[in-house]
Amino acid sequence: MYVILIYDMDSKRVGKMLKLCRQYLNWIQNSVFEGEISPSRLKKLSAKMKMIMNEDYDSIIIFKHRQKIEMNREVIGVERNPLDKFL
Amino acid sequence: MYVILIYDMDSKRVGKMLKLCRQYLNWIQNSVFEGEISPSRLKKLSAKMKMIMNEDYDSIIIFKHRQKIEMNREVIGVERNPLDKFL
Repeated sequence: MYVILIYDMDSKRVGKMLKLCRQYLNWIQNSVFEGEISPSRLKKLSAKMKMIMNEDYDSIIIFKHRQKIEMNREVIGVERNPLDKFL
Repeated sequence: MYVILIYDMDSKRVGKMLKLCRQYLNWIQNSVFEGEISPSRLKKLSAKMKMIMNEDYDSIIIFKHRQKIEMNREVIGVERNPLDKFL
């Protein structure tokens, strides 16, 4: 299954969420992740995300496509690397 | 062509960008848009976005798929409506 995952979190929780998501998907930029993942691993990732996030404040969107598809990507403006914030 | 567009802008410019993107794509949540768009309209949108954004500070990612595909969506946590910020 192909997914694009985007989170919008309180800055206090971004570091933990970034670390978690990078174990399952390819970090693209900022709070955007992409990649192939099995339904069972996505379920595990979702459960772990729920333990980190505050569901009354934070939000996560997951776009899913059941087949393996190739989406190409264009970046306009700055290519942000969230790791900059932690270095 | 199917696209998912995500922007990360200085809050001063978000209102204008939101208004622009909503003329071309379906607003999903926060700074995330999705939909079918022709290459020529996407080109027009990109040109207009560049007039609004500061390319040294803001960033936009556009995922594209040349065919019409259906991606389903899951939201975890808060379903944010950016219009809340302007009401």
